[in-house]
This record gives sequence, C-alpha cells and structure tokens, in this order.
Amino acid sequence: MRPSIFMRFAVLVLVGLVLVSAVEAADRDKLLSEPGVYGTFAAFSLDADWEKQDQAMRIAQLTVLKGVVEQHREKVAIDLYLLRGLSDHADLLFRIHATELRETQQFLLDLQGGLFGKHLTTAAIMHGLTKKANYVPAFPDQLKADLKIHSEPGPKPYAIVIPIRKSADWWGLDQDKRAAMMQEHTEASLPYNKTVKRKLYHSTGLDDLDFITYFETSKLEDFHSLILAMEKVKEFPYNRRFGHPTLIGTVKSLDEIIEVLAQ
Amino acid sequence: MRPSIFMRFAVLVLVGLVLVSAVEAADRDKLLSEPGVYGTFAAFSLDADWEKQDQAMRIAQLTVLKGVVEQHREKVAIDLYLLRGLSDHADLLFRIHATELRETQQFLLDLQGGLFGKHLTTAAIMHGLTKKANYVPAFPDQLKADLKIHSEPGPKPYAIVIPIRKSADWWGLDQDKRAAMMQEHTEASLPYNKTVKRKLYHSTGLDDLDFITYFETSKLEDFHSLILAMEKVKEFPYNRRFGHPTLIGTVKSLDEIIEVLAQ
Amino acid sequence: MRPSIFMRFAVLVLVGLVLVSAVEAADRDKLLSEPGVYGTFAAFSLDADWEKQDQAMRIAQLTVLKGVVEQHREKVAIDLYLLRGLSDHADLLFRIHATELRETQQFLLDLQGGLFGKHLTTAAIMHGLTKKANYVPAFPDQLKADLKIHSEPGPKPYAIVIPIRKSADWWGLDQDKRAAMMQEHTEASLPYNKTVKRKLYHSTGLDDLDFITYFETSKLEDFHSLILAMEKVKEFPYNRRFGHPTLIGTVKSLDEIIEVLAQ
Amino acid sequence: MRPSIFMRFAVLVLVGLVLVSAVEAADRDKLLSEPGVYGTFAAFSLDADWEKQDQAMRIAQLTVLKGVVEQHREKVAIDLYLLRGLSDHADLLFRIHATELRETQQFLLDLQGGLFGKHLTTAAIMHGLTKKANYVPAFPDQLKADLKIHSEPGPKPYAIVIPIRKSADWWGLDQDKRAAMMQEHTEASLPYNKTVKRKLYHSTGLDDLDFITYFETSKLEDFHSLILAMEKVKEFPYNRRFGHPTLIGTVKSLDEIIEVLAQ
Amino acid sequence: MRPSIFMRFAVLVLVGLVLVSAVEAADRDKLLSEPGVYGTFAAFSLDADWEKQDQAMRIAQLTVLKGVVEQHREKVAIDLYLLRGLSDHADLLFRIHATELRETQQFLLDLQGGLFGKHLTTAAIMHGLTKKANYVPAFPDQLKADLKIHSEPGPKPYAIVIPIRKSADWWGLDQDKRAAMMQEHTEASLPYNKTVKRKLYHSTGLDDLDFITYFETSKLEDFHSLILAMEKVKEFPYNRRFGHPTLIGTVKSLDEIIEVLAQ
Repeated sequence: MRPSIFMRFAVLVLVGLVLVSAVEAADRDKLLSEPGVYGTFAAFSLDADWEKQDQAMRIAQLTVLKGVVEQHREKVAIDLYLLRGLSDHADLLFRIHATELRETQQFLLDLQGGLFGKHLTTAAIMHGLTKKANYVPAFPDQLKADLKIHSEPGPKPYAIVIPIRKSADWWGLDQDKRAAMMQEHTEASLPYNKTVKRKLYHSTGLDDLDFITYFETSKLEDFHSLILAMEKVKEFPYNRRFGHPTLIGTVKSLDEIIEVLAQ
Repeated sequence: MRPSIFMRFAVLVLVGLVLVSAVEAADRDKLLSEPGVYGTFAAFSLDADWEKQDQAMRIAQLTVLKGVVEQHREKVAIDLYLLRGLSDHADLLFRIHATELRETQQFLLDLQGGLFGKHLTTAAIMHGLTKKANYVPAFPDQLKADLKIHSEPGPKPYAIVIPIRKSADWWGLDQDKRAAMMQEHTEASLPYNKTVKRKLYHSTGLDDLDFITYFETSKLEDFHSLILAMEKVKEFPYNRRFGHPTLIGTVKSLDEIIEVLAQ
Repeated sequence: MRPSIFMRFAVLVLVGLVLVSAVEAADRDKLLSEPGVYGTFAAFSLDADWEKQDQAMRIAQLTVLKGVVEQHREKVAIDLYLLRGLSDHADLLFRIHATELRETQQFLLDLQGGLFGKHLTTAAIMHGLTKKANYVPAFPDQLKADLKIHSEPGPKPYAIVIPIRKSADWWGLDQDKRAAMMQEHTEASLPYNKTVKRKLYHSTGLDDLDFITYFETSKLEDFHSLILAMEKVKEFPYNRRFGHPTLIGTVKSLDEIIEVLAQ
Repeated sequence: MRPSIFMRFAVLVLVGLVLVSAVEAADRDKLLSEPGVYGTFAAFSLDADWEKQDQAMRIAQLTVLKGVVEQHREKVAIDLYLLRGLSDHADLLFRIHATELRETQQFLLDLQGGLFGKHLTTAAIMHGLTKKANYVPAFPDQLKADLKIHSEPGPKPYAIVIPIRKSADWWGLDQDKRAAMMQEHTEASLPYNKTVKRKLYHSTGLDDLDFITYFETSKLEDFHSLILAMEKVKEFPYNRRFGHPTLIGTVKSLDEIIEVLAQ
Repeated sequence: MRPSIFMRFAVLVLVGLVLVSAVEAADRDKLLSEPGVYGTFAAFSLDADWEKQDQAMRIAQLTVLKGVVEQHREKVAIDLYLLRGLSDHADLLFRIHATELRETQQFLLDLQGGLFGKHLTTAAIMHGLTKKANYVPAFPDQLKADLKIHSEPGPKPYAIVIPIRKSADWWGLDQDKRAAMMQEHTEASLPYNKTVKRKLYHSTGLDDLDFITYFETSKLEDFHSLILAMEKVKEFPYNRRFGHPTLIGTVKSLDEIIEVLAQ
C-alpha cells in the first residue's frame, strides 16, 4: 500500500507541475467576492475501478486531472474538497465560480472526458448566483456594523454545503415580514461570525433549490451551534428543504487531493 | 486526448454528411408553433463504456446517431441539448415534436436500438401537448398586446425544462379564480419576455405531470429573476411539484453534439 | 443494423410459429369481461446485454419468448405493450388475466426463467381484481343508459396504465357521499367514452394501491382531456397517489414485439 | 430449458436429503404460537448471474441452501415463500421465528455466506416480536368467543406481508380510545376469519415499523375484501405507512423452492 | 465452506496480531465519556466480489483491515458492529469517537483505500457531537438521582442506532416547554435504564439530522418497550424523522468480525 520511492517522487513532480499557469489564473478574488457570479457545486464519486488500478496508472490519470484544472483556472475559479470519509454522498467536491455557466460546463466536460474523469460518477450538481445582500440595506446601523466583522484569519479546514428550498408560504409573505425575520436570523448568527465563514448563492430556477449556503470553519462545534441557533428563529419553518444532502468535507488544495488519491 | 488530424477530418466529414435529407425535413416551423402537437423531452445518460472506447469507434457510433436523427427529421422536429456538466440528471436531452406520439416512439426506438444507442441509459421521458392559450382570451387588451412582444432575436445558448404538477386544490378552483391568478402570473412575467423565451406543454395523463415549461435564454440571471417572480404570485402555492428534476443545459446543433462527444 | 435477408426470413418464420396453440387458448373473452378475474400488470426493462448480442442470438431468445407466451395462453390471457421510447420506467409491459394469481406467477416464472427472461429486469408488478360496478346500480337511469354506449370500434394503438391509491379520508366517507362523487366523476367522463376505452381493477391488499385504471385510445388528446376532467371533480382530492408511475405505451401483438426486438 | 433425466434425478435426491435432521428440529409449534418470539421477514433477490449458470451448478448450490436451512431448523423455525412473479420487490422470502435475534442472524449469515447465498441480494429485513393480545382482554365476551373461531383447515397457498407504521397521533391517544377503535377494527375483520389466517408482530424500535401483519389465504378475493374493510374503520387514518412494500407470494416448502430454482 | 486447519490457524494468528499497539491506544474511556467528542457512525456493505474470493485472499485482506484499525486506535476510539443478517441497510458498522473529525476522516480514508476497503460500499455516514445534558440540570432532584442508576453490567450483545430529526415546531418552542416534555420523556424511560444503555449525539448541521441515539442491550424486548414508551410521550410528535434507517446489529470485537468474514 505504501508508495515506492519512485512513486513518491512522481507524485512530488506532479504536484510541482504547471505552476506557471497559476500566474495567468482567472481573477479569482473578483470571482469570489463580486455579485453576478455563478457558483457551481459539483460532487463526484470515484468508481470501484479507481482503487483497483495500480499506483502508476492512478498517477498518470491524476496528471490529467491536474492539467485540466490548471488549464481552466485561467477562466474560472476552482476550489476542491475531500468529502470521502465524512460524507456518504460523494468523494470529491468542486466549487467553480464563473461569469458564465458555459465556462463551468466546459471545465466539467473536460474533467469528465479526461482519463481521470472516466472514474467519476456525478453525485450532484448545484448552481447558484451571487447577488447583493437582499435585506441588509434595511437593517439597523448597529447590525450592519456588526456584520462587517469578518471571520478570524487562519486555516478553516472544514467546509459544509447546505442547499435550501423555501416553502411557497415564504415567497407569499410581503418583503417587510421577510426582512424582519431575516434580521432576527442575522442577529442570531452574529456570535458565530468570527469562527464560521459563510457565503450565499441564489439558486431559484437554476436548480431545484432557492439557495445554497456554504460554510468554512476550523471549529465544527461552533458551526453546529450556529445551525442550531438558525433552527430556533421564526424564519426556519419556512424552509421546505434544508440539506438533503448536507455535504461535509475538508478543504484541500489540488496537490493535496492528488496526494491523497495517489496513495 | 486531442483528436489526431485524421480524426478531426473524420468528424468534419461526419458533420457535413446527410445534409441533403435536411431539405426534406418535417415542417419544423409548423410543429414548433401550432397547437395539437406532442412535445417529448427524452433525457439520456451515457454509460461508463462510452468514454472507454477509442475515438474511431466513437466516431463510427456518432455517424449512426447522425443517420438516425437525419432520417427521422423527415417526420418529426428534433432539438438537442447538452446537459452534461450542468445537470446531474442526464448528459443529453432530445426535444421531439410530432403530430403522433407513435412517430416519436419510432425515432427513440431507432435511436436506442442503434450502435450509439447501446450506450444510452434513459434518465427521463416526459410528454406534453401544445394547446391554444387557456386564459389569454379573457385577459385585458393591454396585457394581450404586451404578450405579443416577443423575445429579442439572437442566440439563446441556455435551455431549462421545469416540469409542473398542480395540486388537487388548483383544479378544484373555478375557472374565474384560476384565470385571475394566471393573469397576475402573466403580468409578473412580462419584464422577462424580451430575454427569456418560453413554451408550454400540457401533460395531464400523458405523464405524472400537468405541465412542462421550457425556457431559452442568453441571460440566466434574468431567467433566475423570472422564476423568483413566479414564486411570489398567488398561483405558486398551487404547484405540488415544480421541477424535480429541473433540467438545465446548453442548446446545441446535432453537429456540435457530435463534436463534443467525438473528442 | 439492418437484418440480412436470412434474418428477416427467420423472423417471419418465428412470427408464424406455434399458431396452432392459439386455438386452444384460454377463454380470453371471458377473462377480459367477467368479474372475479385477476389482472396483473408486469413491466420489464431489457438489460444492457440485450442490445449487445447479435441478431441470430436475439432471434433464438425471442423464439423462447414466443413459446412461453403461447404455451401459457392456454390458461391465461396475455396482452403485450411496447413502453420503450414512450416511458422511462420500462421497455415491455405484459397484462395478464387469470382466475388464479398462481397461474400468472407460473407464467412469469417461466418467462423470467427462459433464455429471453435472463435479459429482463422487473420494473413493476401490480395486481388487481375485476369486480361488478360498485356505484353504478344507484346511478340515475339516464346515466346508466349513457354508460352503455361503448367506445368506437377500430384500432386503439395507445395504452395507458394509471395506478391509484385513495386517501384514508375517502374510505372514511359513508357510501352515499362516495356514490355522489362517483356519479359526478362518471358524468364528467361521459364525453370521452367513444374514443377512450377503460377498464378498472381493484387492488386493495394485493399491492400498495387501491385501483389500477387501464385505458386504450387512438386519440391521446381526448385521453388528456378525460384525465383533465377527472382532476376537476370533487373526488379527485381523495387520491393520495395518482400515477407514479403512469405507464404509457403502444398496444402490440406478440409478433410485432418480436419484430421490433429482433431488429 | 427442461432438465435432463439425470438432473431431475439429482433434484429428487436433493429433495430427499437430510430428512433426518428435521426430526431434531426446533419446537416449531411453540415458536409459531407463543408470545416473546422474534419473527424476522428476510426478502432476497437472485442476482443476474443465477440464471446464467448451468443446471448442475445451480443444483450444487441449492444443495448448500438445503443444508444451511436444515441445519438451522434445529434452533429456529424457517418458512419459505416464492415472491418471484408476484412481487417486484424480491424473489424469495424467509420467515424465521427464534427466541433470540442472534440465532436468526447466524442463520442468515450462513445463508448469505454459502455458495447459494453469493447470488442473493438483500431486499428487505424486518423484525417483530410476538406479544399477548393488547386489546382483546377488554373486548366484550361475544367478540372474544367469535375470535376463537379459527380459519378453516386446508392449504392456504398465498401469503401476504403488510408492514405498518402508526402515526404519532395514534400513540398520543389514551388506551381507551385506541381500544374502542381496535374493537371496531376487530369486528370488521370477523367475516374473514374463516378464510384468511393472520399473525401480528410488534416491531417498534426493531425496525422503522410498528407492526408487521402476516396473512395466509387460499381466497385472495376474501383477503382483498378484508383489507378493504380495514380501510373503512376509524383506526385506519392513524396508519402513517401501510405496506410499502406489500409483499405477496406463494407458500412453498424448501423442496418446492429448490425444484422451482433448479429448473 | 469450512475453513481448512491451515486457514483456521491463519485466522488465529491474525486475531492475535498487533496486540501491542492496543497498549498505546487513544484514551478510549475519555473519548467515550466526555462532552465535545465527535461520534461518527459509518455503515458499509460488502460488494458482491467479496464472497467470490477464496479464503486465503479474504484473510490477507482482513489482515489489512486489522492493521488499519489497530494503527488508528492510537488516536480514535473504534467500535465495530455486525449488521449483516439483521439489517438490510449494511453489513458492517463502525462507530468512531474522535476529538477532531479530520482524524475520523483519515481513518476512513485509510480503511477505504486499503485492500479490504476496495470491497466496501459506503451505506451511510452520520456524525454527532457529545454535549453536556441540556435539560437535566433543571430536572427535579429525585429524577436526577434516578438517572444516576446505570445499566446492569454484563454483555449487551445488541446495538441499535436511531437517527432523529426534530420538526421546525420543536425548535420554535421555548426552552421551558421543551424541558417539560423532555422531563416526561426521561421519566418514561426510567424503567428501562437497567437493561438498555443509551448514548446521545447532537448532529445539527453535521448531517441531515438533529440527533443520533445509540442503544445497547441484551434484552431486545425491553428495548422494544422503551421505544414504545417514547412514542407515547408528548415530545414524540415533534420528531419529523425517527429512524430511516434504524440500524440494528450485534456488538463484535475486531477479531470476531474477522472470524465471521474469514469463514
């Protein structure tokens, strides 16, 4: 099971490869912070044949994975997550940000069409759109100020994705009532802002969802408390679907994913 | 992974083939615009063996696909969509318009029975019927006039299919109440008429649905806003099923599909 | 893909075979018209290996199918339907009428145990019992008379099967209330009696259903209008399950099925 | 498809084997009649490879099945049912009665671990406990007397298993209200006592069920009428799940099962 | 089917192996008793190939299983359960306690990546967190004292896992109302404290659950009565999901699991 020295060397070389293209990468910061960007969560399972191949073959295929990801990073922002061992839904998760869903489709077509992709089974694809905050402009100034306190720096190894579908009743409420409930919701989440980083995607029409909520944390217990707090506010019963699936995994670089899969 | 020059040539020849038969094609315009036409949405996944074949074999099979589609275009109107990379439900979607479902069945039998069809797994088949507008005749004149403004010309690369099942309560309402709600629904959709093209199919009895709604757009953000607007009108809670699945993909010509699958 | 002349000949011979046994067939008319008969709907998918066999092998296996069906026709009435291309649930549907479910089981055991049966995957088996009309005796004379007008003769190529489960509320109503609603239901269906043929099976206890409704028509648009009319009567909200699956296909003789599958 | 004379002989010898151990069998009567016994319903499907083996191989594997069943009959009571051809959920059903679930587990481990077991896929395992009648002691004397009339002797070839989950509302009712409803339920079932044999298992906590109801009959029409009568009493709406799956099959001896599977 | 003497010897040697590393094991007692620990329930099915291998190959692979488990026991607490024969959801269940979910992930990655892991299909992964008792501090003193009576010593061969999702209504209740209901719930469970051992995990956010309840007992009838008592208290209707799946199996040591799988 342990890689030979030669193989370890092969993995290291692979991990060092195509570093150059990263320089020409898409304006990742913009894609990850601006409104009007499409975020896609694509979860895949590795097929039974993957593990049955010898390591040299797997490394050859991971080289293809690396090439495909690096090549598309010029246009889209790609994040990787290891779900295997924590989630029963899939093994790998890609989060892709793009200004056009066609670019995301092209990346996933190349990923699935490549040598590594032959071993991938699609478990879930969910799309959302980043938008300017809906309710925040009407929040009290103190709350607005509190929201500006961002999460503490440092690595946040865990990522969780919770898709949400609101009930028809929710959309039937007038904007004021929804705003009041979202204010309560936001206030209840404040204590966790420091340790749990969040990002919201609007999905209506793009999938059978209304929202995709994305979280990163190093303290899963705080994340648990945050969701528990969310379940206790008045807005919560208006969720017709909350999770199903909840995807939980660890944030990994492309090279870390390759190392795990090469072993 | 890159096709050799020979293969590229083979694809080009394939793409150019059987252009002649297109001349004798079914009266596509009539099938796509008149009432009393059956619209079938047939979504397929490619099996795991497809990608494992070499390119020459895949091109041979795609030639068969091309032949089957061109042959049936004499009787039925066939549109193709690439779902792979955007949808976790299927890889390919065929939309077929026919005056008799038997003709659609014959096309799909030939498609599935051919060399390419051996690699297709049926993901979903949904049928609907085009009918004259139900509620429009009773709409105010201004609304009728507004509805005549059609979507802007130009390519609309994205297509979305949302199946709908109404609740028993909806059908229990009298025609006036339903008409009033459909008027509100229609008015709320007006702002998106220019950028989102729509088509409605009546499915009751032909499938476990009441309607299939079909959309084309180049601006997915507008489409998202349209569906969000639809969720806020009084008719929305009468949907027992909305989506599940929502199919999202890109509009492709037969030749474009062949190019993607040949690579 | 086209069968050679030899193969065409083989299919023709096969189609002509065992015609003799049809003479000794079960009293099909009685089984199809009397109460106290069990009707079974057994839907099967063909496995991926079926299409991968050469035609001679397929013809050999279809000969076995023909033999099994003809042999059992002495005891049970067997109808065949081609679902492939119209339904995503299955490829073939058998409707079997028998005075004892054991005889149906014996037929399906022989079908599945034979060379052709190795390629069949069971998609659904539903059982129902024919009974004398429940509510009709209390209907007004005019309605009774109207019900005696049978559907027009001539081929009805389409068949649709809709399983139904009533809610607990339905069975909790007293017989009078149910009868009044069934009268409204029946009156609403009258306009479609000429073009849509129907048959009702009572399933309670034999499956997770209360009824199986079976339809034949040459005018699918009329069938669509019939079901739409049924959705608007007061009895409809008492259906907890209506369809799921709705099976739609074309009525075929055994020989027609063999021809389609041999090609 | 027909077994050769040699094979028929082999089946007969197999069927005659290990008769001795039946003498030392578990006290079957006690296990089938007393309270405090665990009843397990284990349904299996045969895999696609089963039918593809030649008959000699299948007979060798059925010999192993016979050995495993006979060996465990010293400790547990085992009944077999053929679901294939009548149920789309599974091919074979084992009903096992034991004083400890560990003994049932050991039997099923040996069954699945043996040569025949390699072809079995578990479709469902449900457990229940026999208990003294809950509500009967408080029933009127006449009803108690009526309940003592047992079903008519003679073969009852059909068996049906219906799992039941009560709603939370049911358990929230006080004992008197539940008893009154169970009395109505019991009175409504009386007319079918002669032709439909019943047995009740309590499942709460052992599975996602509250009860497993087991029926044997030679008159399926009576069984249908019985369940229809049950759907009309006040207790019925308190069932959150009734069936799903309803398992229907024929009662078979081990030797009959072997004969069917050997052919 | 019976292992040869050599193989029995091989199993015994295997079972005796790596006993040393157990000495350096994680502080199992602390992990199993303290709050702030993550408990993961990972259920796996063995694939169809497992049984088809000869015994020597299976023993070689079980040696790898043993190595992986013993190696990780230095960091995480690992318990094993045999579900096969009692549950239709999976064959094996691992319960892992760790202070960080990353350590659990690493164990499961090594398990799945090893020679034995190639035969495992993930059936379910559920996570929960141990926390200090929520409602107990406000309970009356007598109840607090009663709760200190622990279950009787001695082996408890059966283990049951019931995941729970509360309704939105539950979380909308104020703490007092929830506390009163949990007091009734706790009082109703007291009679079973001696024979049924329990442990609670808080899952909100970590999975599509709110709680995972874990039980051990030697008296399944008492466990059945306990759950029945729980269904009758006022808190029960606030469970939106209770079970689904209910996992039931037997507690086994690693060596016992190896013996069962080696045979």
